[in-house]
Amino acid sequence: MEFKLKHKDGMARVCEITTAHSTFLTPVFMPVGTVGAVKSLDANDMKNELDAKIILANTYHMYLRPTSKVVKDFGGLHGFTKFDRSFLTDSGGFQAFSLSKNSKHFNEGIEFKSHIDGSHHLFTPKSVLDTQYDFNSDIMMILDDLVALPATKERVKISVDRTILWAKEAITYHKSMQNKGIGIGQNIFGIIQGGTDYEERKRCALSLNEMPFDGLAIGGLSVGEENALMYETVQNLNPYLDENRPRYLMGVGTPEDLVENVERGVDMFDCVMPTRNARNGTFFTSFGKFNIKKAEFINDHEAIDPACSCYTCRNFSRGYLNHLFKAKELTFFRLASLHNLHYYLELARKMREAILNNSFTQFKRNFYHLRGK
Amino acid sequence: MEFKLKHKDGMARVCEITTAHSTFLTPVFMPVGTVGAVKSLDANDMKNELDAKIILANTYHMYLRPTSKVVKDFGGLHGFTKFDRSFLTDSGGFQAFSLSKNSKHFNEGIEFKSHIDGSHHLFTPKSVLDTQYDFNSDIMMILDDLVALPATKERVKISVDRTILWAKEAITYHKSMQNKGIGIGQNIFGIIQGGTDYEERKRCALSLNEMPFDGLAIGGLSVGEENALMYETVQNLNPYLDENRPRYLMGVGTPEDLVENVERGVDMFDCVMPTRNARNGTFFTSFGKFNIKKAEFINDHEAIDPACSCYTCRNFSRGYLNHLFKAKELTFFRLASLHNLHYYLELARKMREAILNNSFTQFKRNFYHLRGK
Repeated sequence: MEFKLKHKDGMARVCEITTAHSTFLTPVFMPVGTVGAVKSLDANDMKNELDAKIILANTYHMYLRPTSKVVKDFGGLHGFTKFDRSFLTDSGGFQAFSLSKNSKHFNEGIEFKSHIDGSHHLFTPKSVLDTQYDFNSDIMMILDDLVALPATKERVKISVDRTILWAKEAITYHKSMQNKGIGIGQNIFGIIQGGTDYEERKRCALSLNEMPFDGLAIGGLSVGEENALMYETVQNLNPYLDENRPRYLMGVGTPEDLVENVERGVDMFDCVMPTRNARNGTFFTSFGKFNIKKAEFINDHEAIDPACSCYTCRNFSRGYLNHLFKAKELTFFRLASLHNLHYYLELARKMREAILNNSFTQFKRNFYHLRGK
Repeated sequence: MEFKLKHKDGMARVCEITTAHSTFLTPVFMPVGTVGAVKSLDANDMKNELDAKIILANTYHMYLRPTSKVVKDFGGLHGFTKFDRSFLTDSGGFQAFSLSKNSKHFNEGIEFKSHIDGSHHLFTPKSVLDTQYDFNSDIMMILDDLVALPATKERVKISVDRTILWAKEAITYHKSMQNKGIGIGQNIFGIIQGGTDYEERKRCALSLNEMPFDGLAIGGLSVGEENALMYETVQNLNPYLDENRPRYLMGVGTPEDLVENVERGVDMFDCVMPTRNARNGTFFTSFGKFNIKKAEFINDHEAIDPACSCYTCRNFSRGYLNHLFKAKELTFFRLASLHNLHYYLELARKMREAILNNSFTQFKRNFYHLRGK
């Protein structure tokens, strides 16, 4: 991975990242393609309609089905899905923890039962990398030890101990594999845990920052804690993160979360919010969000957001979308997902522009002003 | 409507039809856009990916929601859906009969309860035209009196009596409305009923053929009767149908049904089969149909039909589609619908080509040969 820190405006950064499959500027939002497709969309939608440079796929899902062996046989995620730009894959640990029944965390890894057929599986720091080598993802995430918040100080300490232990195992294994010619074009990110405990976060960050990861992620946030606590945790980590590596805040968040965390030095984001909300009829716009099912939209000839240039806003009215949503028509999901993802990708683009112009503070003020805040 | 009978090969015909919104050649297949969208697709998919010249929308559904008043307010179906080529709308009678609880057929019309909210409604020969004027559909269908097959000779006779009565009411009303400047650019088709009873079909056809309809449809077939009986019924009607008007076989059918009925002089078809089967994972191909969920496709790098030039076959493998289908991923439905509709539209195009080349018999032999028949 080539990484260039191009510009800073306060703590907000514009960086340029080049992987084996694409070059992109940060702040970047990565749409979530759980099973190898962003829900309701395909590779050409992502490239031609949205111009997404990098998307995320979930290791847990793809490992269970179609299996990493099948994905490898198709030339990795790029060959399988035909999205030929960058892929980031998570470790699978989060889904093993949240989707499967009776997952157990040991010092060796995470044991879980498949949500598809109930079969037993074990994710270890090495096994999740082997899976991601098969995927040929551009950015691989290490296995980390998640805790549900709120958690006891004791449990958070165990989580950080294990996460550091697993991080060492992962980076050592990855370097040895690269020496054998495997995963040469792939990058690996460490993940900082520690809940909202300042000392534990700091300990984890300092430790992982010493390891030769290509980037560092902040995990275990946006799990129900107060927004202010999330922002504070990110801000407090800033001094302990190498400035010359990308910083990725996992699973975050609302448009407001993106703006607040970019201001605190985060470069990369992913979240199911734009696509999940699309499927529930909620649209993100420059003036806030609204649900299309309301009766006031039945006769509305306007686009979702008259200021938006997305495929859906260029072509269809709120009235038609209100109708499709109420009729539970499949067409709706693609049109709504295209709009919401366009909103998120445009938000990231506007933030990059503002940072490069040293006007991020003004951008943020205007962002809230348009929302009536 | 401008109608030109361009060429005949046996009873098979190529005709050119020009409506206020598009010109198309027959035999033509009309994708079904029940609620104003072909399921999982939008207006640009229909135009740019499939080049469909005419699609069908269901009056029953659009009348109940968003209501004809809303559709009219958006400039009819074309303005509402943004598909600016031709629309054919049915009368709503078939859905009132099949979808609603306790529908009742009187001499005045069909009374039914909405499947959405249980409200009571009455469709009459005039009211269904008023609704279709609001839709501004290019081809309107008259209300007819359907019977479930098998039916008693007595019930079939009542059906034909009513259908003739309603046809007279409809054509008289339409001409009077056109004299008032309403529905000027719209066309109206009569519908021939009579089950599989030769004498009743003939009586209905002779009667409707005398009325100044822009085209004639054959209704009440493909409702469970033997294929051979359907083909025979269509063939027997041929001598009683004006050669200089389009002939539309409603709700039909399989690829084989299209070929057999084109051979018997039918020009227009509509059916939910390509889109409904797509959603069940069944693909139509030049070598027959198959279901993508079978395990043999997990590692299959081929396109659905290597001979197919559709969007899906140009871009994605059977292996990826197998995976998306098993994961119940929304993306699948659009890709599968695009392929199956492309198959149907291509089948119609190839039949037109064969008829123009006087090689329909050879085309039909080859069509079955590729299917191993």
